[in-house]
Amino acid sequence: MARRGIVGVMGAGENARSIDIRNAFALGSAIADEGWIVLTGGRNRGVMDAVSKGAKAAGGLTVGILPTKDKRTISAAVDVAIITDMGSARNYINVLTSDVIVACGAGGPGTASEIALALKSDKFVILFNSSQESRTYFKKIGGRLVLEADSVSRTVELIKGLLAKMGKSQREQ
Amino acid sequence: MARRGIVGVMGAGENARSIDIRNAFALGSAIADEGWIVLTGGRNRGVMDAVSKGAKAAGGLTVGILPTKDKRTISAAVDVAIITDMGSARNYINVLTSDVIVACGAGGPGTASEIALALKSDKFVILFNSSQESRTYFKKIGGRLVLEADSVSRTVELIKGLLAKMGKSQREQ
Amino acid sequence: MARRGIVGVMGAGENARSIDIRNAFALGSAIADEGWIVLTGGRNRGVMDAVSKGAKAAGGLTVGILPTKDKRTISAAVDVAIITDMGSARNYINVLTSDVIVACGAGGPGTASEIALALKSDKFVILFNSSQESRTYFKKIGGRLVLEADSVSRTVELIKGLLAKMGKSQREQ
Amino acid sequence: MARRGIVGVMGAGENARSIDIRNAFALGSAIADEGWIVLTGGRNRGVMDAVSKGAKAAGGLTVGILPTKDKRTISAAVDVAIITDMGSARNYINVLTSDVIVACGAGGPGTASEIALALKSDKFVILFNSSQESRTYFKKIGGRLVLEADSVSRTVELIKGLLAKMGKSQREQ
Repeated sequence: MARRGIVGVMGAGENARSIDIRNAFALGSAIADEGWIVLTGGRNRGVMDAVSKGAKAAGGLTVGILPTKDKRTISAAVDVAIITDMGSARNYINVLTSDVIVACGAGGPGTASEIALALKSDKFVILFNSSQESRTYFKKIGGRLVLEADSVSRTVELIKGLLAKMGKSQREQ
Repeated sequence: MARRGIVGVMGAGENARSIDIRNAFALGSAIADEGWIVLTGGRNRGVMDAVSKGAKAAGGLTVGILPTKDKRTISAAVDVAIITDMGSARNYINVLTSDVIVACGAGGPGTASEIALALKSDKFVILFNSSQESRTYFKKIGGRLVLEADSVSRTVELIKGLLAKMGKSQREQ
Repeated sequence: MARRGIVGVMGAGENARSIDIRNAFALGSAIADEGWIVLTGGRNRGVMDAVSKGAKAAGGLTVGILPTKDKRTISAAVDVAIITDMGSARNYINVLTSDVIVACGAGGPGTASEIALALKSDKFVILFNSSQESRTYFKKIGGRLVLEADSVSRTVELIKGLLAKMGKSQREQ
Repeated sequence: MARRGIVGVMGAGENARSIDIRNAFALGSAIADEGWIVLTGGRNRGVMDAVSKGAKAAGGLTVGILPTKDKRTISAAVDVAIITDMGSARNYINVLTSDVIVACGAGGPGTASEIALALKSDKFVILFNSSQESRTYFKKIGGRLVLEADSVSRTVELIKGLLAKMGKSQREQ
């Protein structure tokens, strides 16, 4: 039986906009509804915290890849906390472990590094509600690997299509 | 609610003895029965494969931390496959992520590195059916962090005691 | 005595433009002339190879942080080859180890990840002959940490100013 | 021209015995005299600090692979400080980057992890003035990869033989 698909959702930890937080929560719930695993950077901040909370609210399974050993920084909504103690090098693990990556909101340098590492590793990235500058830049360097969405439902539709191509079960049986 | 306890089980990937394989399977099942998550190095070989299979046979949740990007090397019994592409540096993640580490059988250099990294990180290690040389050496450098067991039931008893001290729920409610 | 400054130069490994290769070689020589250490991703390709060759031509010291264990991929112009076996996670080491980072040419996703990881780590990045899209995007997410240059001499001038502020000796005595 | 050989010297950071500190200093000088590069874990403590100081006293080149971003912990005798921010995962880089590894003194869990990771990576390890328990254990799991020495001169002789087999220049021309 195929392993469940893993959707990595990245975004601002600090200074996330409230619209991104709301979108992250809704996206986390929608991903869990589809039976996919939600993966984030694991901290109790911003987009990563909200998407994990949304997934848990819908009964999903959540994985967090933590940058430090400080247990107080782990989101309460993370079921499986992977402790790397590798700072931002964990961003590489985030993208390799995810079947599809979603950048929720424009994000800052951390999110940018994850998008870039994903493209370097030939992974698809969905820019959900990103900035104009981000879309223009990543389209230029990522080409066909970069997709865009402006709603949760469109994001889920794109994920579904990508996972289907990879032969990932869309729903746990 | 407390996050579920994670028990890391390490051991030979290649050249594992058949007794270690049998013990690993039984240990995986026993860990799953207690409601704990099983963590391994994730490959489809030796002790790590057997412990994951045992856990799945008992309906448990299994996490594998993989050293390479080669998907063909992932154990079919791993539910959540964390892809590091970091070779043996992933051994550090194995031990940090585990609440308790069990070395099943004497193991080789890979297992030795995990025991040592665990001790360096102040983690408890249970040597289950280890060699005399291994027990003598790790007791010397690890002191009170090194425990010994010669049966699955004794290993589980030791894990239970250690997780209880950490305030980990012994069983998912 | 202050440790010598380390200048990390990043850029395309594959498909580098000939202008970027020429600039990289000249920049490597200029950095070595100032007594600074040149750091790159270490492979025998594109910008990283050219900047190391330029530095060696001027008698400098070169450090390469390699992504794999494959010794055949190491640039012959690297004096100290650090073998990570961590794929693109080594990009994080590249930027943390460098006092200043220069992106030579527009680069692709690998270079983008290094710029982003540098900004995340509060490091200054000089975009030397970058694309309009790259400059616009990284200025937006990096603010004052992002500088621009369109010549080797201007790049060196900027590095000199930044290292001086950090108290790094500009020249080995 | 062949790249200079790199000799990694590992040992206790804290609680090093004074005999190990003295041996480390003498070994560092002897390695530098041979024209080889000295590699350590880079901190200003114990064996790693002493071996770097010895190498500098003899005019050698020293590389340190640091576990954290804290610059105050870097040995003053390290010329090239590689900043990983990866905790003990940097031990893997230490051994992969070294052509030969020397464990100076018995060491603790950190040193044990480096010996084990070296053996896992098929690297030769010289146990210089180690404990009986360590020698017995690592001989058992490492076989022909584990050598023993009880003097600086014997250690250097062993290194010379190993580097010669690898085609490393014994002395920079």
